[in-house]
Amino acid sequence: MEDSAPRPGEKKVVAVVGGGLVGALNACFFAKRGFQVEVYETREDIRCANVVRGRSINLALSHRGRQALKHVGMEEKIVSKGIPMNARMIHALSGKQSPIPYGKKGQVKAETYPNTKLNFDHKLQDWSAETGLMTFARPDGSKTQVRADLIVGCDGAFSAVRKQFLRRSRFNYSQTYIPHGYMELTMPPKHGEFAMKPNYLHIWPRNTFMMIALPNLDKTFTCTLFMPFEEFEKITTGDEVIEFFQKYFPDAIPLIGADALKRDYFRLPAQAMVSVKCSPYHIGDKCVLMGDAAHAVVPFYGQGMNAGFEDCIVFDEIMNRFNEDFGAVLPEYTRVRVPDDHAIADLAMYNYVEMRAHVNSKWFIFRKHVDNLLHLLMPKTIIPLYTMVTFTRTRYHVAVERWHWQDKVINRGLLAGAVGAVFGGSYLLVKNPPNINKLAVAAEKIWNKLAALNTP
Amino acid sequence: MEDSAPRPGEKKVVAVVGGGLVGALNACFFAKRGFQVEVYETREDIRCANVVRGRSINLALSHRGRQALKHVGMEEKIVSKGIPMNARMIHALSGKQSPIPYGKKGQVKAETYPNTKLNFDHKLQDWSAETGLMTFARPDGSKTQVRADLIVGCDGAFSAVRKQFLRRSRFNYSQTYIPHGYMELTMPPKHGEFAMKPNYLHIWPRNTFMMIALPNLDKTFTCTLFMPFEEFEKITTGDEVIEFFQKYFPDAIPLIGADALKRDYFRLPAQAMVSVKCSPYHIGDKCVLMGDAAHAVVPFYGQGMNAGFEDCIVFDEIMNRFNEDFGAVLPEYTRVRVPDDHAIADLAMYNYVEMRAHVNSKWFIFRKHVDNLLHLLMPKTIIPLYTMVTFTRTRYHVAVERWHWQDKVINRGLLAGAVGAVFGGSYLLVKNPPNINKLAVAAEKIWNKLAALNTP
Repeated sequence: MEDSAPRPGEKKVVAVVGGGLVGALNACFFAKRGFQVEVYETREDIRCANVVRGRSINLALSHRGRQALKHVGMEEKIVSKGIPMNARMIHALSGKQSPIPYGKKGQVKAETYPNTKLNFDHKLQDWSAETGLMTFARPDGSKTQVRADLIVGCDGAFSAVRKQFLRRSRFNYSQTYIPHGYMELTMPPKHGEFAMKPNYLHIWPRNTFMMIALPNLDKTFTCTLFMPFEEFEKITTGDEVIEFFQKYFPDAIPLIGADALKRDYFRLPAQAMVSVKCSPYHIGDKCVLMGDAAHAVVPFYGQGMNAGFEDCIVFDEIMNRFNEDFGAVLPEYTRVRVPDDHAIADLAMYNYVEMRAHVNSKWFIFRKHVDNLLHLLMPKTIIPLYTMVTFTRTRYHVAVERWHWQDKVINRGLLAGAVGAVFGGSYLLVKNPPNINKLAVAAEKIWNKLAALNTP
Repeated sequence: MEDSAPRPGEKKVVAVVGGGLVGALNACFFAKRGFQVEVYETREDIRCANVVRGRSINLALSHRGRQALKHVGMEEKIVSKGIPMNARMIHALSGKQSPIPYGKKGQVKAETYPNTKLNFDHKLQDWSAETGLMTFARPDGSKTQVRADLIVGCDGAFSAVRKQFLRRSRFNYSQTYIPHGYMELTMPPKHGEFAMKPNYLHIWPRNTFMMIALPNLDKTFTCTLFMPFEEFEKITTGDEVIEFFQKYFPDAIPLIGADALKRDYFRLPAQAMVSVKCSPYHIGDKCVLMGDAAHAVVPFYGQGMNAGFEDCIVFDEIMNRFNEDFGAVLPEYTRVRVPDDHAIADLAMYNYVEMRAHVNSKWFIFRKHVDNLLHLLMPKTIIPLYTMVTFTRTRYHVAVERWHWQDKVINRGLLAGAVGAVFGGSYLLVKNPPNINKLAVAAEKIWNKLAALNTP
């Protein structure tokens, strides 16, 4: 038992629960402000570990994430560790590869300040919203109690900090698992070099499922296969794995290796993907949730880490405005950030659904062409949603509102155009002996066309 | 410690956790089939209690609920205990009362079969999805362990059974609190009789808030005030309560009594209302959730209890189809019932939102008139949603689909009508010297009218 309750005149203690990407960045933000920062992480210190368990992390760092790193002076350091990814490379079933321009990519490593202490092997068991007292379980079976002035829950989609929120009334919460799972397979180097071009996000789009591959610093690629759970479960033998790859990803078999494929497919079951939304993000002046603990998103907009990093800047901006008064900062953070995080969670889910359902809809394809054309004609008025989300810091919910507004304007324009065409048509028809039956037939045809387009 | 694990040849044990309305009815359904039924209830046996704590229950029993009661031969018994409620009585601000025809109402009392045991003072602490072993805490601080072949979680919106589901992967769950709270106030009898006409649901609609009153057998009324929490919190003194009632419910002050009002308003804080949706409803062949534990709804469609009762019939029908094989019955129950429960939860929420937002929209009022007119003209084709939900056993999600379909047809009809009017108009215009400018102006006018209607 130890107790680090702050004494008058001492530095306030901020406990960051979770030493992942958002936790580490948050620790830097609080340390920079001069707080005594204690980071608590369930796992052991991987810098000293013999075997690192768990999955690899490949993450796309875009504008919002870079801005957050810049605030703590780490942008250049981290971007230099990353592998730039300036284009997507689409692998067709035929094996043909076509590049499509894109963004940038990075890998992130935590950095610590002198007034920051990292506490590994600390598994949060319980904490009090009244006193800020936390209880941690240690690997030897003992328990440690520690008090903090502010508890920052950065402990991911299955947050232990959040459990306390769920016990309280008027906490809105949703967790939604999607029918797709994912599986990671490693593509080894070939003759000591990357087996495919490294500066690309490689994509094998196959309608209801897909595979992507991202380069690692050790010249391997991590291939991630996304597929409905029921499809994963249909494959039960090594031969069925090869048969499946032969049918859908033939060019990947020699690159991953048939034997590795047969073995690695069964190493771990397919992993689930969850979308978490909640509100409020805080309890009193004692605790706040950030990153995946507050808003886990499905990985179909590449914004999970960027949204978590942006959480840190937004909180920091509010700390400035309210002079570090937690009692005022925390409610304001909830008020400002909830709509944006909900917007990005919804967008990621929308992209997932769109990927599966709309891709073959005539209306959808028609609208994509119209939108691209309008962006070319009016680049400042009609901005594609993807651009606003990935390359700016436009608030997520504002980006979505603007997108809906553009959508409405474009749809109305199309309908007005159709009505105009009807007018024009009727005018031409009535110039010669007017025939009301012909008009009715023409109207019905146009009506049916519009109706067919609107039904995906 | 006791252990009621079933031995070969013995009757299978069904543990119903929660002795509320749905738990009690479910116990009857399982007992009727010959299972050994054990009902576990956290609270003490209110039949022997001196003081019954908690809130009164007033519930509207409609078609679905009655059908479920009929299955266990309890319909007549329970309906005879209820107070028929054939109309709504609307209280205007002026005090004027206007009746509107409506449905029926009842109060429900649990009934037990000989092969059913009621176990009060049993608070579920934990249970195993592998073995069916449950651990209960007893009032004396001891623990009891009991094993069952099937655990039926009927323990309400804050279900203890459901906690185990939340720990598992791929369990979808959402809990949404609405910004309104509610408060119950008692209207005493007047000269030994009901203070208002008893066979009515009394309603005081006041835009963003409202009060309702339902009759009890002891000739009192339970008045329920629904209002945003922030409005409740603005009232802090007895005088402010009277001021508030004077402004919005002046006719209720003498009926409740000014002194009682001043006192009872502060007896309990306003209560929260939550909507819960989840999926799946089962784990393996061991556990299933029903009633509020599976789908708590906000009380704005009067279907909470009826949906819970219908759960029991639906489960019973599936038990027949799959010959009481839990391994087949439970997944089928999830497959069949989830879409219907989600539909009624959404409808109740939709009614809540509509009540607040759409009530003043021109388009909404216009459409209500059109819908009512169409129901009069085509009573078999266009059926109002409320009728399908309340007076039939049409599956909830089918009722909603049908409603959306009707909605689409009616909206398209209106649009087609508008296009027709444009045609007619243009035809008349071009009979005289055709003037394309006039046509454009007319088209714009019609377009603006339609656009204005579509924007609430």
